[in-house]
Amino acid sequence: MSNAPIGIFDSGLGGLTVLKELMAQLPNESFIYLGDTARLPYGTKSPETIRKYLQQTSSFLANKNVKAIVVACNSASSVVTENETISGIPIYGVINPGADSAINKTAKNRIGIMGTTATITQDSYKKAIHKLAPDTKVFSKACPLLVPLVEEGWHEDPITNLVLHRYLADLMGDGIDTLVLGCTHYPVLKESIKKIVGPYISLVDSAEAISKVLKEKLSEANLISDNQKPYVKFYATDINESFSLMAQRILGTDTKIPVEAVNL
Amino acid sequence: MSNAPIGIFDSGLGGLTVLKELMAQLPNESFIYLGDTARLPYGTKSPETIRKYLQQTSSFLANKNVKAIVVACNSASSVVTENETISGIPIYGVINPGADSAINKTAKNRIGIMGTTATITQDSYKKAIHKLAPDTKVFSKACPLLVPLVEEGWHEDPITNLVLHRYLADLMGDGIDTLVLGCTHYPVLKESIKKIVGPYISLVDSAEAISKVLKEKLSEANLISDNQKPYVKFYATDINESFSLMAQRILGTDTKIPVEAVNL
Repeated sequence: MSNAPIGIFDSGLGGLTVLKELMAQLPNESFIYLGDTARLPYGTKSPETIRKYLQQTSSFLANKNVKAIVVACNSASSVVTENETISGIPIYGVINPGADSAINKTAKNRIGIMGTTATITQDSYKKAIHKLAPDTKVFSKACPLLVPLVEEGWHEDPITNLVLHRYLADLMGDGIDTLVLGCTHYPVLKESIKKIVGPYISLVDSAEAISKVLKEKLSEANLISDNQKPYVKFYATDINESFSLMAQRILGTDTKIPVEAVNL
Repeated sequence: MSNAPIGIFDSGLGGLTVLKELMAQLPNESFIYLGDTARLPYGTKSPETIRKYLQQTSSFLANKNVKAIVVACNSASSVVTENETISGIPIYGVINPGADSAINKTAKNRIGIMGTTATITQDSYKKAIHKLAPDTKVFSKACPLLVPLVEEGWHEDPITNLVLHRYLADLMGDGIDTLVLGCTHYPVLKESIKKIVGPYISLVDSAEAISKVLKEKLSEANLISDNQKPYVKFYATDINESFSLMAQRILGTDTKIPVEAVNL
Protein backbone atom coordinates (compact mmCIF):
# COMPACT_ATOMS: atom_id res chain seq x y z
CA MET A 1 0.00 0.00 0.00
CA SER A 2 2.78 2.47 0.87
CA ASN A 3 4.18 2.07 -2.66
CA ALA A 4 0.80 2.87 -4.23
CA PRO A 5 0.79 6.07 -6.29
CA ILE A 6 -0.62 9.45 -5.23
CA GLY A 7 -3.44 10.83 -7.41
CA ILE A 8 -3.39 14.49 -8.44
CA PHE A 9 -6.37 16.12 -10.06
CA ASP A 10 -6.66 19.53 -11.70
CA SER A 11 -9.08 21.16 -14.13
CA GLY A 12 -6.16 21.48 -16.55
CA LEU A 13 -2.41 21.81 -16.56
CA GLY A 14 -1.81 24.35 -13.80
CA GLY A 15 -1.78 21.54 -11.24
CA LEU A 16 1.54 20.43 -12.71
CA THR A 17 3.17 23.07 -10.46
CA VAL A 18 1.76 21.06 -7.53
CA LEU A 19 3.01 17.80 -9.05
CA LYS A 20 6.49 19.33 -9.49
CA GLU A 21 6.63 20.37 -5.82
CA LEU A 22 5.30 16.99 -4.62
CA MET A 23 7.94 15.20 -6.72
CA ALA A 24 10.64 17.35 -5.07
CA GLN A 25 9.31 16.84 -1.52
CA LEU A 26 8.45 13.15 -1.89
CA PRO A 27 11.12 11.76 -4.22
CA ASN A 28 10.21 8.08 -3.86
CA GLU A 29 6.50 8.50 -4.59
CA SER A 30 4.74 7.58 -7.83
CA PHE A 31 2.03 9.89 -9.16
CA ILE A 32 -1.03 9.71 -11.39
CA TYR A 33 -1.98 13.11 -12.79
CA LEU A 34 -5.45 13.74 -14.21
CA GLY A 35 -6.28 17.01 -16.01
CA ASP A 36 -9.97 17.56 -16.83
CA THR A 37 -8.99 19.62 -19.87
CA ALA A 38 -12.26 18.94 -21.73
CA ARG A 39 -14.29 20.81 -19.12
CA LEU A 40 -11.93 23.58 -18.00
CA PRO A 41 -12.17 26.24 -16.71
CA TYR A 42 -13.91 25.15 -13.49
CA GLY A 43 -13.89 28.70 -12.09
CA THR A 44 -17.02 29.75 -13.95
CA LYS A 45 -19.03 26.67 -12.95
CA SER A 46 -21.46 26.32 -10.05
CA PRO A 47 -20.37 24.46 -6.87
CA GLU A 48 -22.95 21.71 -7.66
CA THR A 49 -21.42 21.08 -11.09
CA ILE A 50 -17.88 21.14 -9.66
CA ARG A 51 -18.86 18.58 -6.99
CA LYS A 52 -20.22 16.30 -9.71
CA TYR A 53 -16.95 16.59 -11.66
CA LEU A 54 -14.90 16.03 -8.47
CA GLN A 55 -16.88 12.83 -7.82
CA GLN A 56 -16.08 11.55 -11.34
CA THR A 57 -12.39 12.45 -11.25
CA SER A 58 -11.91 11.04 -7.73
CA SER A 59 -13.58 7.77 -8.78
CA PHE A 60 -11.21 7.53 -11.74
CA LEU A 61 -8.17 8.01 -9.48
CA ALA A 62 -9.58 5.67 -6.80
CA ASN A 63 -9.90 2.96 -9.46
CA LYS A 64 -6.18 3.41 -10.16
CA ASN A 65 -5.58 2.33 -6.53
CA VAL A 66 -4.02 5.57 -5.32
CA LYS A 67 -3.32 5.96 -1.60
CA ALA A 68 -4.29 9.64 -1.47
CA ILE A 69 -5.86 12.24 -3.79
CA VAL A 70 -4.60 15.82 -4.04
CA VAL A 71 -6.99 18.34 -5.60
CA ALA A 72 -4.63 20.92 -7.11
CA CYS A 73 -7.37 23.09 -8.65
CA ASN A 74 -8.42 25.98 -6.39
CA SER A 75 -12.04 25.98 -7.60
CA ALA A 76 -12.38 22.23 -7.03
CA SER A 77 -10.56 22.50 -3.67
CA SER A 78 -13.20 24.93 -2.47
CA VAL A 79 -15.86 22.17 -2.58
CA VAL A 80 -13.71 19.53 -0.82
CA THR A 81 -15.12 18.98 2.70
CA GLU A 82 -13.07 18.35 5.85
CA ASN A 83 -11.80 14.76 6.19
CA GLU A 84 -13.36 13.89 2.81
CA THR A 85 -12.66 10.39 1.45
CA ILE A 86 -13.66 8.23 -1.49
CA SER A 87 -13.63 4.43 -0.98
CA GLY A 88 -11.58 5.15 2.16
CA ILE A 89 -8.95 7.18 0.26
CA PRO A 90 -8.38 10.67 1.73
CA ILE A 91 -8.91 13.73 -0.51
CA TYR A 92 -6.84 16.85 0.18
CA GLY A 93 -7.49 20.31 -1.30
CA VAL A 94 -5.02 23.22 -1.56
CA ILE A 95 -7.10 25.94 0.15
CA ASN A 96 -6.76 24.90 3.81
CA PRO A 97 -3.00 24.20 3.72
CA GLY A 98 -2.50 27.57 1.97
CA ALA A 99 -4.67 29.42 4.51
CA ASP A 100 -2.90 27.68 7.40
CA SER A 101 0.54 28.54 6.04
CA ALA A 102 -0.45 32.20 5.52
CA ILE A 103 -1.68 32.50 9.12
CA ASN A 104 1.62 31.03 10.38
CA LYS A 105 3.64 33.50 8.31
CA THR A 106 1.81 36.77 8.92
CA ALA A 107 3.07 38.94 11.80
CA LYS A 108 0.88 41.99 11.11
CA ASN A 109 -2.25 39.88 10.50
CA ARG A 110 -2.60 41.38 7.02
CA ILE A 111 -2.76 38.77 4.26
CA GLY A 112 -3.14 39.39 0.53
CA ILE A 113 -4.70 36.87 -1.88
CA MET A 114 -4.06 36.76 -5.62
CA GLY A 115 -6.32 34.48 -7.64
CA THR A 116 -8.48 34.04 -10.70
CA THR A 117 -11.72 36.02 -10.81
CA ALA A 118 -13.64 32.89 -9.75
CA THR A 119 -11.42 32.12 -6.74
CA ILE A 120 -11.56 35.73 -5.56
CA THR A 121 -15.34 35.98 -6.10
CA GLN A 122 -15.90 32.76 -4.13
CA ASP A 123 -13.70 34.11 -1.30
CA SER A 124 -12.47 30.56 -0.55
CA TYR A 125 -9.14 31.62 1.01
CA LYS A 126 -10.71 34.48 2.96
CA LYS A 127 -13.30 32.09 4.45
CA ALA A 128 -10.66 29.46 5.31
CA ILE A 129 -8.41 32.09 6.95
CA HIS A 130 -11.25 33.65 8.96
CA LYS A 131 -12.34 30.22 10.19
CA LEU A 132 -8.88 29.70 11.73
CA ALA A 133 -8.03 33.32 12.61
CA PRO A 134 -11.11 35.57 12.61
CA ASP A 135 -9.20 38.80 13.33
CA THR A 136 -6.93 38.58 10.31
CA LYS A 137 -7.40 41.27 7.66
CA VAL A 138 -7.63 39.71 4.20
CA PHE A 139 -7.18 41.74 0.99
CA SER A 140 -8.04 40.10 -2.33
CA LYS A 141 -7.10 40.88 -5.92
CA ALA A 142 -8.47 39.09 -8.99
CA CYS A 143 -5.67 38.71 -11.55
CA PRO A 144 -7.38 37.27 -14.67
CA LEU A 145 -4.48 38.02 -17.06
CA LEU A 146 -1.87 35.92 -15.27
CA VAL A 147 -3.08 32.48 -16.41
CA PRO A 148 -3.16 33.45 -20.12
CA LEU A 149 0.26 35.14 -19.75
CA VAL A 150 1.77 31.94 -18.31
CA GLU A 151 0.02 29.81 -20.95
CA GLU A 152 1.42 32.13 -23.65
CA GLY A 153 4.89 31.36 -22.23
CA TRP A 154 5.52 35.02 -21.39
CA HIS A 155 6.87 34.58 -17.86
CA GLU A 156 10.10 36.50 -17.14
CA ASP A 157 8.82 39.00 -19.68
CA PRO A 158 8.60 42.81 -19.45
CA ILE A 159 4.88 42.76 -20.33
CA THR A 160 4.11 40.27 -17.55
CA ASN A 161 6.15 42.37 -15.12
CA LEU A 162 4.07 45.44 -15.99
CA VAL A 163 0.86 43.47 -15.44
CA LEU A 164 2.15 42.13 -12.11
CA HIS A 165 3.17 45.64 -10.97
CA ARG A 166 -0.35 46.88 -11.68
CA TYR A 167 -2.08 43.93 -9.96
CA LEU A 168 0.18 44.08 -6.90
CA ALA A 169 0.07 47.88 -6.35
CA ASP A 170 -3.22 47.78 -4.40
CA LEU A 171 -2.24 44.82 -2.21
CA MET A 172 1.12 46.43 -1.39
CA GLY A 173 -0.70 49.67 -0.56
CA ASP A 174 -2.90 47.70 1.86
CA GLY A 175 0.19 46.96 3.96
CA ILE A 176 0.11 43.16 3.65
CA ASP A 177 3.11 41.18 4.94
CA THR A 178 2.00 37.82 3.47
CA LEU A 179 0.78 37.05 -0.03
CA VAL A 180 -1.02 33.85 -1.08
CA LEU A 181 -0.39 32.72 -4.67
CA GLY A 182 -3.98 31.45 -4.98
CA CYS A 183 -3.82 29.80 -8.38
CA THR A 184 -1.88 26.78 -9.61
CA HIS A 185 -0.30 28.80 -12.44
CA TYR A 186 1.26 31.47 -10.21
CA PRO A 187 4.28 29.55 -8.86
CA VAL A 188 5.70 29.92 -12.41
CA LEU A 189 5.74 33.70 -11.72
CA LYS A 190 7.13 33.42 -8.17
CA GLU A 191 10.56 34.93 -8.86
CA SER A 192 9.05 37.90 -10.73
CA ILE A 193 6.53 38.46 -7.91
CA LYS A 194 9.33 38.27 -5.30
CA LYS A 195 11.29 40.99 -7.09
CA ILE A 196 8.24 43.30 -7.11
CA VAL A 197 7.02 42.83 -3.52
CA GLY A 198 10.52 42.82 -1.99
CA PRO A 199 11.87 40.96 1.04
CA TYR A 200 9.28 42.06 3.63
CA ILE A 201 6.31 40.27 2.12
CA SER A 202 6.31 36.46 2.50
CA LEU A 203 4.87 34.41 -0.33
CA VAL A 204 2.62 31.42 0.28
CA ASP A 205 2.82 28.86 -2.49
CA SER A 206 -0.13 26.44 -2.19
CA ALA A 207 1.98 23.77 -3.88
CA GLU A 208 4.53 23.95 -1.05
CA ALA A 209 1.81 24.08 1.61
CA ILE A 210 -0.07 21.02 0.33
CA SER A 211 3.21 19.10 -0.12
CA LYS A 212 4.09 19.70 3.54
CA VAL A 213 0.61 18.59 4.71
CA LEU A 214 0.62 15.49 2.51
CA LYS A 215 4.11 14.48 3.71
CA GLU A 216 2.92 14.73 7.34
CA LYS A 217 -0.28 12.77 6.67
CA LEU A 218 1.53 9.99 4.79
CA SER A 219 4.14 9.84 7.51
CA GLU A 220 1.51 9.57 10.27
CA ALA A 221 -0.22 6.74 8.37
CA ASN A 222 3.11 5.00 7.69
CA LEU A 223 2.50 5.35 3.97
CA ILE A 224 5.72 6.98 2.74
CA SER A 225 7.02 5.04 -0.24
CA ASP A 226 10.55 3.61 -0.48
CA ASN A 227 10.13 2.88 -4.18
CA GLN A 228 13.53 3.39 -5.87
CA LYS A 229 11.95 3.58 -9.32
CA PRO A 230 8.86 5.77 -8.90
CA TYR A 231 6.79 6.65 -11.98
CA VAL A 232 4.47 9.45 -13.11
CA LYS A 233 1.50 8.81 -15.42
CA PHE A 234 -0.53 11.54 -17.13
CA TYR A 235 -4.19 11.41 -18.13
CA ALA A 236 -6.35 14.16 -19.66
CA THR A 237 -9.98 14.35 -20.77
CA ASP A 238 -9.05 16.34 -23.88
CA ILE A 239 -5.60 16.31 -25.42
CA ASN A 240 -4.37 19.16 -27.58
CA GLU A 241 -0.96 20.22 -28.75
CA SER A 242 -0.41 22.70 -25.95
CA PHE A 243 -0.68 20.03 -23.23
CA SER A 244 2.73 18.50 -23.86
CA LEU A 245 4.39 21.91 -24.36
CA MET A 246 2.91 23.42 -21.16
CA ALA A 247 3.75 20.25 -19.22
CA GLN A 248 7.38 20.41 -20.36
CA ARG A 249 7.52 24.14 -19.50
CA ILE A 250 6.12 23.69 -15.99
CA LEU A 251 8.02 20.52 -15.14
CA GLY A 252 11.20 21.98 -16.64
CA THR A 253 12.02 19.09 -18.94
CA ASP A 254 12.89 18.76 -22.63
CA THR A 255 11.52 15.22 -22.80
CA LYS A 256 8.16 14.77 -24.53
CA ILE A 257 5.56 13.80 -21.93
CA PRO A 258 3.16 10.99 -22.93
CA VAL A 259 -0.47 11.71 -22.05
CA GLU A 260 -3.32 9.20 -22.23
CA ALA A 261 -6.83 10.34 -23.18
CA VAL A 262 -9.62 9.40 -20.80
CA ASN A 263 -13.41 9.74 -21.04
CA LEU A 264 -15.07 10.37 -17.67
CA MET B 1 -43.10 39.52 -40.01
CA SER B 2 -40.80 42.40 -41.05
CA ASN B 3 -41.14 43.90 -37.57
CA ALA B 4 -40.08 40.62 -35.92
CA PRO B 5 -36.81 40.84 -33.99
CA ILE B 6 -33.41 39.58 -35.16
CA GLY B 7 -31.78 36.93 -32.96
CA ILE B 8 -28.09 37.20 -32.09
CA PHE B 9 -26.25 34.37 -30.45
CA ASP B 10 -22.77 34.32 -28.94
CA SER B 11 -20.91 32.06 -26.50
CA GLY B 12 -20.66 35.07 -24.20
CA LEU B 13 -20.53 38.84 -24.32
CA GLY B 14 -18.13 39.47 -27.20
CA GLY B 15 -21.06 39.28 -29.63
CA LEU B 16 -22.30 42.59 -28.24
CA THR B 17 -19.83 44.27 -30.64
CA VAL B 18 -21.87 42.66 -33.43
CA LEU B 19 -25.14 43.79 -31.81
CA LYS B 20 -23.78 47.35 -31.56
CA GLU B 21 -22.88 47.42 -35.26
CA LEU B 22 -26.23 45.87 -36.28
CA MET B 23 -28.09 48.48 -34.20
CA ALA B 24 -26.16 51.23 -36.00
CA GLN B 25 -26.73 49.76 -39.48
CA LEU B 26 -30.36 48.73 -38.94
CA PRO B 27 -31.79 51.39 -36.62
CA ASN B 28 -35.43 50.26 -36.79
CA GLU B 29 -34.78 46.61 -35.97
CA SER B 30 -35.46 44.92 -32.64
CA PHE B 31 -32.94 42.37 -31.32
CA ILE B 32 -32.89 39.39 -29.00
CA TYR B 33 -29.37 38.67 -27.72
CA LEU B 34 -28.50 35.29 -26.23
CA GLY B 35 -25.13 34.70 -24.54
CA ASP B 36 -24.34 31.08 -23.65
CA THR B 37 -22.22 32.27 -20.71
CA ALA B 38 -22.65 29.03 -18.72
CA ARG B 39 -20.80 27.01 -21.35
CA LEU B 40 -18.20 29.45 -22.65
CA PRO B 41 -15.58 29.32 -24.04
CA TYR B 42 -16.68 27.43 -27.15
CA GLY B 43 -13.21 27.61 -28.69
CA THR B 44 -11.92 24.60 -26.78
CA LYS B 45 -14.93 22.40 -27.59
CA SER B 46 -15.25 19.86 -30.40
CA PRO B 47 -17.29 20.73 -33.54
CA GLU B 48 -19.86 18.05 -32.55
CA THR B 49 -20.45 19.66 -29.15
CA ILE B 50 -20.62 23.14 -30.69
CA ARG B 51 -23.23 21.93 -33.22
CA LYS B 52 -25.33 20.55 -30.37
CA TYR B 53 -25.14 23.90 -28.54
CA LEU B 54 -25.93 25.79 -31.76
CA GLN B 55 -29.03 23.63 -32.22
CA GLN B 56 -30.23 24.48 -28.68
CA THR B 57 -29.53 28.20 -28.92
CA SER B 58 -31.10 28.47 -32.39
CA SER B 59 -34.23 26.68 -31.16
CA PHE B 60 -34.48 29.12 -28.26
CA LEU B 61 -34.26 32.10 -30.62
CA ALA B 62 -36.62 30.50 -33.17
CA ASN B 63 -39.20 30.12 -30.39
CA LYS B 64 -38.93 33.88 -29.82
CA ASN B 65 -40.18 34.29 -33.42
CA VAL B 66 -37.09 35.98 -34.79
CA LYS B 67 -36.90 36.59 -38.55
CA ALA B 68 -33.16 35.79 -38.80
CA ILE B 69 -30.40 34.46 -36.57
CA VAL B 70 -26.89 35.92 -36.51
CA VAL B 71 -24.18 33.72 -34.98
CA ALA B 72 -21.68 36.26 -33.65
CA CYS B 73 -19.30 33.70 -32.13
CA ASN B 74 -16.45 32.74 -34.46
CA SER B 75 -16.20 29.16 -33.12
CA ALA B 76 -19.93 28.59 -33.53
CA SER B 77 -19.92 30.30 -36.95
CA SER B 78 -17.37 27.77 -38.17
CA VAL B 79 -19.98 24.97 -37.87
CA VAL B 80 -22.81 26.91 -39.60
CA THR B 81 -23.42 25.36 -43.03
CA GLU B 82 -24.27 27.24 -46.24
CA ASN B 83 -27.93 28.30 -46.44
CA GLU B 84 -28.60 26.82 -43.00
CA THR B 85 -32.08 27.38 -41.53
CA ILE B 86 -34.07 26.38 -38.46
CA SER B 87 -37.88 26.22 -38.80
CA GLY B 88 -37.40 28.18 -42.04
CA ILE B 89 -35.44 30.96 -40.30
CA PRO B 90 -32.06 31.68 -41.93
CA ILE B 91 -28.89 31.38 -39.80
CA TYR B 92 -25.91 33.60 -40.69
CA GLY B 93 -22.37 33.19 -39.35
CA VAL B 94 -19.60 35.81 -39.29
CA ILE B 95 -16.83 33.83 -41.03
CA ASN B 96 -18.03 33.97 -44.66
CA PRO B 97 -18.93 37.70 -44.66
CA GLY B 98 -15.53 38.44 -43.07
CA ALA B 99 -13.67 36.30 -45.60
CA ASP B 100 -15.61 37.87 -48.48
CA SER B 101 -14.87 41.39 -47.25
CA ALA B 102 -11.16 40.61 -46.87
CA ILE B 103 -10.94 39.29 -50.43
CA ASN B 104 -12.62 42.46 -51.72
CA LYS B 105 -10.19 44.67 -49.83
CA THR B 106 -6.83 43.01 -50.54
CA ALA B 107 -4.84 44.29 -53.51
CA LYS B 108 -1.66 42.27 -52.88
CA ASN B 109 -3.58 39.06 -52.10
CA ARG B 110 -1.92 38.90 -48.69
CA ILE B 111 -4.42 38.69 -45.82
CA GLY B 112 -3.63 38.46 -42.10
CA ILE B 113 -5.97 36.86 -39.55
CA MET B 114 -5.96 37.61 -35.81
CA GLY B 115 -8.06 35.30 -33.66
CA THR B 116 -8.26 33.21 -30.51
CA THR B 117 -6.12 30.07 -30.40
CA ALA B 118 -9.18 27.97 -31.26
CA THR B 119 -10.19 30.06 -34.30
CA ILE B 120 -6.62 30.06 -35.61
CA THR B 121 -6.13 26.32 -34.97
CA GLN B 122 -9.40 25.54 -36.78
CA ASP B 123 -8.26 27.71 -39.75
CA SER B 124 -11.89 28.75 -40.38
CA TYR B 125 -11.09 32.07 -42.08
CA LYS B 126 -8.22 30.59 -44.11
CA LYS B 127 -10.53 27.83 -45.42
CA ALA B 128 -13.32 30.30 -46.23
CA ILE B 129 -10.90 32.63 -48.04
CA HIS B 130 -9.26 29.82 -50.03
CA LYS B 131 -12.68 28.50 -51.10
CA LEU B 132 -13.45 31.87 -52.72
CA ALA B 133 -9.92 32.90 -53.77
CA PRO B 134 -7.51 29.92 -53.77
CA ASP B 135 -4.41 31.99 -54.69
CA THR B 136 -4.62 34.33 -51.71
CA LYS B 137 -1.80 34.10 -49.18
CA VAL B 138 -3.23 33.90 -45.67
CA PHE B 139 -1.10 34.55 -42.54
CA SER B 140 -2.56 33.69 -39.13
CA LYS B 141 -1.70 34.79 -35.61
CA ALA B 142 -3.28 33.43 -32.43
CA CYS B 143 -3.71 36.28 -29.91
CA PRO B 144 -4.96 34.60 -26.70
CA LEU B 145 -4.28 37.60 -24.43
CA LEU B 146 -6.57 40.05 -26.22
CA VAL B 147 -9.91 38.71 -24.92
CA PRO B 148 -8.81 38.81 -21.24
CA LEU B 149 -7.31 42.29 -21.78
CA VAL B 150 -10.63 43.58 -23.16
CA GLU B 151 -12.58 41.83 -20.39
CA GLU B 152 -10.24 43.43 -17.83
CA GLY B 153 -11.23 46.82 -19.31
CA TRP B 154 -7.65 47.60 -20.32
CA HIS B 155 -8.29 48.81 -23.87
CA GLU B 156 -6.56 52.10 -24.77
CA ASP B 157 -3.90 51.03 -22.28
CA PRO B 158 -0.09 50.97 -22.64
CA ILE B 159 0.08 47.29 -21.64
CA THR B 160 -2.48 46.31 -24.29
CA ASN B 161 -0.56 48.37 -26.85
CA LEU B 162 2.66 46.47 -26.04
CA VAL B 163 0.83 43.15 -26.41
CA LEU B 164 -0.70 44.28 -29.73
CA HIS B 165 2.72 45.42 -31.02
CA ARG B 166 4.15 41.99 -30.25
CA TYR B 167 1.25 40.07 -31.82
CA LEU B 168 1.15 42.24 -34.95
CA ALA B 169 4.92 42.31 -35.64
CA ASP B 170 4.93 38.97 -37.51
CA LEU B 171 1.84 39.73 -39.60
CA MET B 172 3.24 43.14 -40.59
CA GLY B 173 6.54 41.46 -41.48
CA ASP B 174 4.60 39.09 -43.76
CA GLY B 175 3.60 42.07 -45.92
CA ILE B 176 -0.16 41.80 -45.46
CA ASP B 177 -2.35 44.65 -46.77
CA THR B 178 -5.58 43.42 -45.13
CA LEU B 179 -6.15 42.27 -41.56
CA VAL B 180 -9.22 40.34 -40.34
CA LEU B 181 -10.23 41.02 -36.72
CA GLY B 182 -11.30 37.39 -36.28
CA CYS B 183 -12.84 37.58 -32.81
CA THR B 184 -15.90 39.40 -31.51
CA HIS B 185 -13.86 41.18 -28.82
CA TYR B 186 -11.36 42.78 -31.20
CA PRO B 187 -13.48 45.67 -32.57
CA VAL B 188 -13.06 47.21 -29.08
CA LEU B 189 -9.32 47.42 -29.92
CA LYS B 190 -9.79 48.68 -33.49
CA GLU B 191 -8.44 52.21 -32.95
CA SER B 192 -5.32 50.89 -31.15
CA ILE B 193 -4.74 48.33 -33.92
CA LYS B 194 -5.17 51.02 -36.61
CA LYS B 195 -2.48 53.16 -34.98
CA ILE B 196 -0.04 50.25 -34.96
CA VAL B 197 -0.59 48.90 -38.48
CA GLY B 198 -0.85 52.33 -40.11
CA PRO B 199 -2.90 53.50 -43.10
CA TYR B 200 -1.76 50.90 -45.67
CA ILE B 201 -3.32 47.89 -44.00
CA SER B 202 -7.14 47.68 -44.24
CA LEU B 203 -8.99 46.23 -41.28
CA VAL B 204 -11.89 43.81 -41.71
CA ASP B 205 -14.35 43.97 -38.84
CA SER B 206 -16.61 40.88 -38.94
CA ALA B 207 -19.33 42.89 -37.20
CA GLU B 208 -19.40 45.36 -40.12
CA ALA B 209 -19.22 42.56 -42.68
CA ILE B 210 -22.13 40.55 -41.22
CA SER B 211 -24.21 43.74 -40.80
CA LYS B 212 -23.81 44.53 -44.49
CA VAL B 213 -24.76 40.97 -45.52
CA LEU B 214 -27.77 40.88 -43.19
CA LYS B 215 -29.01 44.25 -44.46
CA GLU B 216 -28.85 42.96 -48.05
CA LYS B 217 -30.60 39.69 -47.19
CA LEU B 218 -33.41 41.41 -45.26
CA SER B 219 -33.80 43.92 -48.06
CA GLU B 220 -34.05 41.18 -50.73
CA ALA B 221 -36.69 39.38 -48.65
CA ASN B 222 -38.58 42.62 -47.99
CA LEU B 223 -38.07 42.17 -44.27
CA ILE B 224 -36.54 45.53 -43.22
CA SER B 225 -38.43 46.81 -40.19
CA ASP B 226 -40.05 50.26 -39.99
CA ASN B 227 -40.59 49.93 -36.23
CA GLN B 228 -40.20 53.41 -34.69
CA LYS B 229 -39.75 51.96 -31.19
CA PRO B 230 -37.44 48.98 -31.62
CA TYR B 231 -36.32 47.06 -28.53
CA VAL B 232 -33.36 44.93 -27.44
CA LYS B 233 -33.75 42.01 -25.02
CA PHE B 234 -30.83 40.19 -23.36
CA TYR B 235 -30.73 36.55 -22.26
CA ALA B 236 -27.82 34.60 -20.78
CA THR B 237 -27.39 31.02 -19.58
CA ASP B 238 -25.34 32.16 -16.56
CA ILE B 239 -25.49 35.65 -15.13
CA ASN B 240 -22.62 37.09 -13.14
CA GLU B 241 -21.73 40.61 -12.11
CA SER B 242 -19.38 41.20 -15.03
CA PHE B 243 -22.14 40.70 -17.61
CA SER B 244 -23.82 44.03 -17.05
CA LEU B 245 -20.51 45.88 -16.74
CA MET B 246 -19.06 44.38 -19.92
CA ALA B 247 -22.34 44.99 -21.78
CA GLN B 248 -22.30 48.65 -20.76
CA ARG B 249 -18.65 48.96 -21.77
CA ILE B 250 -19.14 47.44 -25.22
CA LEU B 251 -22.45 49.15 -26.00
CA GLY B 252 -21.08 52.45 -24.66
CA THR B 253 -23.93 53.20 -22.25
CA ASP B 254 -24.13 54.14 -18.57
CA THR B 255 -27.59 52.59 -18.20
CA LYS B 256 -27.78 49.27 -16.38
CA ILE B 257 -28.72 46.54 -18.85
CA PRO B 258 -31.36 44.03 -17.66
CA VAL B 259 -30.48 40.41 -18.46
CA GLU B 260 -32.82 37.45 -18.10
CA ALA B 261 -31.45 34.03 -17.08
CA VAL B 262 -32.34 31.12 -19.35
CA ASN B 263 -31.78 27.37 -19.00
CA LEU B 264 -31.19 25.65 -22.35
